[in-house]
Amino acid sequence: MYKNIKVIALDADDTLWVNEPYFREVEHQFAKLLSPYETENKINQELYKKEMDNLELYGYGVKGFVLSMVEAAIEISNNKVNSKEIQQILDFGKEMLSKPIELLDGAEEVLKKLSPKYKLILATKGDLLDQERKLKKSGLLKYFDHIEVLSDKKEDNYKRLIEFLEVAPSEFLMIGNSLKSDILPLVALNSNAIHVPYHTTWIHEEVTQNDNVDSYKTIQSLSDVLVFL
Amino acid sequence: MYKNIKVIALDADDTLWVNEPYFREVEHQFAKLLSPYETENKINQELYKKEMDNLELYGYGVKGFVLSMVEAAIEISNNKVNSKEIQQILDFGKEMLSKPIELLDGAEEVLKKLSPKYKLILATKGDLLDQERKLKKSGLLKYFDHIEVLSDKKEDNYKRLIEFLEVAPSEFLMIGNSLKSDILPLVALNSNAIHVPYHTTWIHEEVTQNDNVDSYKTIQSLSDVLVFL
Repeated sequence: MYKNIKVIALDADDTLWVNEPYFREVEHQFAKLLSPYETENKINQELYKKEMDNLELYGYGVKGFVLSMVEAAIEISNNKVNSKEIQQILDFGKEMLSKPIELLDGAEEVLKKLSPKYKLILATKGDLLDQERKLKKSGLLKYFDHIEVLSDKKEDNYKRLIEFLEVAPSEFLMIGNSLKSDILPLVALNSNAIHVPYHTTWIHEEVTQNDNVDSYKTIQSLSDVLVFL
Repeated sequence: MYKNIKVIALDADDTLWVNEPYFREVEHQFAKLLSPYETENKINQELYKKEMDNLELYGYGVKGFVLSMVEAAIEISNNKVNSKEIQQILDFGKEMLSKPIELLDGAEEVLKKLSPKYKLILATKGDLLDQERKLKKSGLLKYFDHIEVLSDKKEDNYKRLIEFLEVAPSEFLMIGNSLKSDILPLVALNSNAIHVPYHTTWIHEEVTQNDNVDSYKTIQSLSDVLVFL
């Protein structure tokens, strides 16, 4: 298994470094800020609904998240939110964009060992500038042959990426924490995928049904990929 | 001249389709919205200053522009801006992201004639999702071999792009409307560039000094590239 692999693509957020917990933290601060207007539960629900309504227009990433928070705040408060509270929401976003990078266990070791043997691609979604900045801050840029920021991670996005790389699906391997975005699209393409679950998952990335458990591997820690590669 | 060219990269905004006039229009609406608080001239100045302050964090594109408008509105109004005005600013952004594409003269004809003879790349900056959406709406996607959304268009970004394409700088040609972003970085790399000026240019893209007039061509309309290629 994995003998024909030529290109390995790795997800970044919550695969190489911490990301989702920062969103959860800001959602919590957002709910605290709006606590004069609503309960935390209702605020979380409304924010998620707003994010889903705006997803097609804004896409993934911090800037769209901040715009959705501002809009949700206006609605939740019945137009009572004041400009200082809006400024606070903008500042949440600026903090997120300026955060230092916290690498996950084994990230650097794995890349160091794989990079002489495979073509390594970073395959991520979100804001292009933000992802480039995180990669630079992470110190991991030197291990990658190519950075591909995708507007989404669906079957068709991977199909085009694999074609562009001029390899067969069987020669491509994706490693990531999201079943929905990093694993199942590759299974559908008869390509390869290794799942490294992370303790925090955005609801939008959750998959309820999964009948494909035989067609990909699940490991507990990123370092475990070295057993197979 | 241009005999060795293998890859032609084209800018998108204001080279293939209308973009900058939409920003000018929204800036004007933004000033009208805030007219109870300040003069249009002062509002324009403050918004531009805010965009420059945020550029490193937000990058180019509509979402960062909207976030800067919200922040500028709070400051310009001394915290008096209300939530309906903030919502109006968010709606300006949503309208921009939903606008139909208005192709510039000759765009489709030029791509149709060049695509069988050269590898064509779309090289643009801004929001990844927004640029992909515009390209799909434009009907021009089929002419391009590759889409490269760059976080910025400086010498180093082009250097990496040319290396990634595995051609020599002399085999690469960039066509675009911005002297600063599409032309001068290529001149610095001893590569090739054709300038197609557009009537509206963002101040940030303006170049005061230009001593390189012999090292690139300037044409009046995109169709004129066909004379040389």
